[in-house]
Amino acid sequence: MKIVETAAELRQYLKPLRINREIGFVPTMGYLHEGHLSLVRRAKQECQTVVMSIFVNPLQFGPGEDFDRYPRDLERDAALARQAGVDVLFYPSVDEMYGEGTLTTVQVRKVSEPLCGASRPGHFDGVATVVAKLFNIVGPDRAYFGLKDAQQVAVIERMVQDLHFPVTIVPCPIVREADGLALSSRNVYLSETEREQALILSRSLREAEEKLKHGELEHAEEIKEYVRRRISTMPLAEIDYVEALTYPDLEPFFRWEGQRVIVAVAVKFGATRLIDNLLIGGRED
Amino acid sequence: MKIVETAAELRQYLKPLRINREIGFVPTMGYLHEGHLSLVRRAKQECQTVVMSIFVNPLQFGPGEDFDRYPRDLERDAALARQAGVDVLFYPSVDEMYGEGTLTTVQVRKVSEPLCGASRPGHFDGVATVVAKLFNIVGPDRAYFGLKDAQQVAVIERMVQDLHFPVTIVPCPIVREADGLALSSRNVYLSETEREQALILSRSLREAEEKLKHGELEHAEEIKEYVRRRISTMPLAEIDYVEALTYPDLEPFFRWEGQRVIVAVAVKFGATRLIDNLLIGGRED
Repeated sequence: MKIVETAAELRQYLKPLRINREIGFVPTMGYLHEGHLSLVRRAKQECQTVVMSIFVNPLQFGPGEDFDRYPRDLERDAALARQAGVDVLFYPSVDEMYGEGTLTTVQVRKVSEPLCGASRPGHFDGVATVVAKLFNIVGPDRAYFGLKDAQQVAVIERMVQDLHFPVTIVPCPIVREADGLALSSRNVYLSETEREQALILSRSLREAEEKLKHGELEHAEEIKEYVRRRISTMPLAEIDYVEALTYPDLEPFFRWEGQRVIVAVAVKFGATRLIDNLLIGGRED
Repeated sequence: MKIVETAAELRQYLKPLRINREIGFVPTMGYLHEGHLSLVRRAKQECQTVVMSIFVNPLQFGPGEDFDRYPRDLERDAALARQAGVDVLFYPSVDEMYGEGTLTTVQVRKVSEPLCGASRPGHFDGVATVVAKLFNIVGPDRAYFGLKDAQQVAVIERMVQDLHFPVTIVPCPIVREADGLALSSRNVYLSETEREQALILSRSLREAEEKLKHGELEHAEEIKEYVRRRISTMPLAEIDYVEALTYPDLEPFFRWEGQRVIVAVAVKFGATRLIDNLLIGGRED
């Protein structure tokens, strides 16, 4: 596995690898877990060269968020990436990505506004801008994103469509622990009790899905009410949002009639904010 | 010369032309004149394949501006492009470029704010967004822009730097009529009297440059005052702005000490808004 720290070197290195071959790209913020590695494995199935980036992007963190304490461990990450079959690891500095600062931002309206966009103003501008940069540096044919960040996938898909990026976005399923907890680099922050109570996220979502499919829940408001009530049984849970919207347009709906929707939650346990979601109905059901 | 109307067909057509060869790109809004053709000739010297786009971009026109009456003549443009040696003419519809509308915009702060950015709010967001789209569709190695739109060049150069587009921007000199009038597709709007009075733009800029270089003018305020006074001698001239700023950062300066600056004007003659500028000092002097 080749490790590269500058955009210029990466471009140079990838140039001969493009000819009649496909480049798969897995952008990450590092502190890799099985979720990231599942993206790499999918990319390996579909592309001759797999590039992973590890970059904790300051532009997508708000003031008071966890940019400084976000977990980082390059040595461990490099070992995991190598094992999983990454061919090129791109590990740029903040200076390499932003130089004296960026005057240019990419904004995706509407889909970036509800959910985490409402809780974290500017977050998706930061995401769209850094992904545009990375796409221009790496020039991938296919890029792999986990559906744990389903809104991020919706924002990136819309950006790619609107700006005509020559990239196919491949959304990949959430990877969970055996007990249902969605994998996240932030799970390391959780105390034992917090981790136990955090299981209510996936559990309440699964329950809501069951009840929806059996007709016990029907309206968006009922779904949200149900999930909210279940999460509130956990004394350490502080709800940021519980939402049910269409996917990928992220617009409100009244009654579920089999269309593709997302039920999404963001919940704080102590200082740690976790998100989880389920996509229900539509093309995949 | 190949004429292509869709992004998909263009990508397909250009694919084999990329391998070990360079693609030069000349984006235009059509109604071609010698200014555009000078960009093509420069591109032909430096690249094996020259792509020109003709697209009157609605996103960069404000309400009440001349989007609807902007001159269009594909047949004439195609003949001129062919003669000048364009290999591929990309002529997309508004629907092809924007589909059901774009939620995504590219914004370049600071350099897009003074001059035409102040007179035409949102103009440079429209420019940056459409150029990002076109770069992603065409995938050029080099892109050619005329310095008549010097602020546009500054905005695009900054966007390319910030978003790491793998494109070299080549700014090209303003082409003028023998009497000094800067070529513009909008010159066709001018009555004979308006056209005659419009010569004051290039003339006052040249005079200011002379006086600056001979020490008769020294401060930005003096330069602006001089040019403004000269333009005001024309009864049909309605000044939008007269500015003197550093280039390409477009920041105010106090005294000219040989640094690269732009003296830029926008003046209305009847319903027709003309712009002109001179770059003075710095790297090219």
